[in-house]
Amino acid sequence: MKVELEKVEPREIEKRSFEIISRELGDRVFEKDQEMIIKRCIHTSADFDYADHLCFSEHAVKKAMDAIKKGACIVTDTQMAKAGINKKALEQYGGEVYCFMSDEDVAKEAKKNGTTRATVCMDKAAKLKKPLIFAIGNAPTALVRLYELIEENKIKPELIIGVPVGFVNVVQSKELIMETSIPYIVARGRKGGSNIAACICNAILYQM
Amino acid sequence: MKVELEKVEPREIEKRSFEIISRELGDRVFEKDQEMIIKRCIHTSADFDYADHLCFSEHAVKKAMDAIKKGACIVTDTQMAKAGINKKALEQYGGEVYCFMSDEDVAKEAKKNGTTRATVCMDKAAKLKKPLIFAIGNAPTALVRLYELIEENKIKPELIIGVPVGFVNVVQSKELIMETSIPYIVARGRKGGSNIAACICNAILYQM
Repeated sequence: MKVELEKVEPREIEKRSFEIISRELGDRVFEKDQEMIIKRCIHTSADFDYADHLCFSEHAVKKAMDAIKKGACIVTDTQMAKAGINKKALEQYGGEVYCFMSDEDVAKEAKKNGTTRATVCMDKAAKLKKPLIFAIGNAPTALVRLYELIEENKIKPELIIGVPVGFVNVVQSKELIMETSIPYIVARGRKGGSNIAACICNAILYQM
Repeated sequence: MKVELEKVEPREIEKRSFEIISRELGDRVFEKDQEMIIKRCIHTSADFDYADHLCFSEHAVKKAMDAIKKGACIVTDTQMAKAGINKKALEQYGGEVYCFMSDEDVAKEAKKNGTTRATVCMDKAAKLKKPLIFAIGNAPTALVRLYELIEENKIKPELIIGVPVGFVNVVQSKELIMETSIPYIVARGRKGGSNIAACICNAILYQM
């Protein structure tokens, strides 16, 4: 091997990664309960932009933890995010993870209404009689529909993790969520993703 | 709403996104079969770094498509990547997607040997008697083990998609793969992820 590998024990890899992230962040100071979320997003993406672009409403992390303790469930807009969320950690508190994107009734309804499946998923989630955390990593239309449902008093999520990624209405949909009175964690701008949505859920769970 | 949303029909959102990506890439020219892979990675991440960091061995995309036509299966190192790969598109050619990370025997073996589960997964994959494409979006130790198995003539993948993300041996593990004679698509540097691994698989499938 011409390439030189760093010798790190398997169980030390994550610790070593966070040391490198902390070192490269230098003297930046974050609120205590936000710090591990920001660092875990950087760990998941190797993208230090998250140190600047993650926005938290007041006490968002504490409110999320309180909701999970009450048995809140997580609704995501991709099977990838669902796959990435630590479901065992959530189950300890009685919660589960829902993603309706592959449901046949959702596809049918979206086609009928000329809307996106993500929009229909939010309507379906609004019918759940449970405390809910939304983890949206893909579809800005999900955030737009959530905004409408909130404005119409049809839903009152415990937290919205608003981190869709992309180019069409992504920036705007995040700003909309930040206008509501609902607790949020939002990655301002174009960046985000299913991996980031799952990562933020896990970062909250691992602090509990 | 104070925020102004762009009016785009659901089925036009992806097309519009790719128009924006093309416009922002300006006059950059890519090889024809690489272009849609690069653009889809940018679409998935909103990160234009992929225009600079994606490296392709000679005819990698054509070789990947030929392998899929022969019924090649995809091995990934995360359930997230597995969730993100378009399995229906792959099944049309007879292939399926494997991820051994949650297998009990893998966890047991990794613990016994003081190694990572990703390493053990590569050993398990090496026993499959099928043409294989590896899509590694998380664990550099998977790439390191693949490198060793290739050097020992124990495996000969059709393609390695080497896009783990992170800080410990990530950069090095990608360079190792680029030293082999195996076709590769690698995201040089620290960036990548399960989403990028799945996205590259899908970008290949959607070109076929």
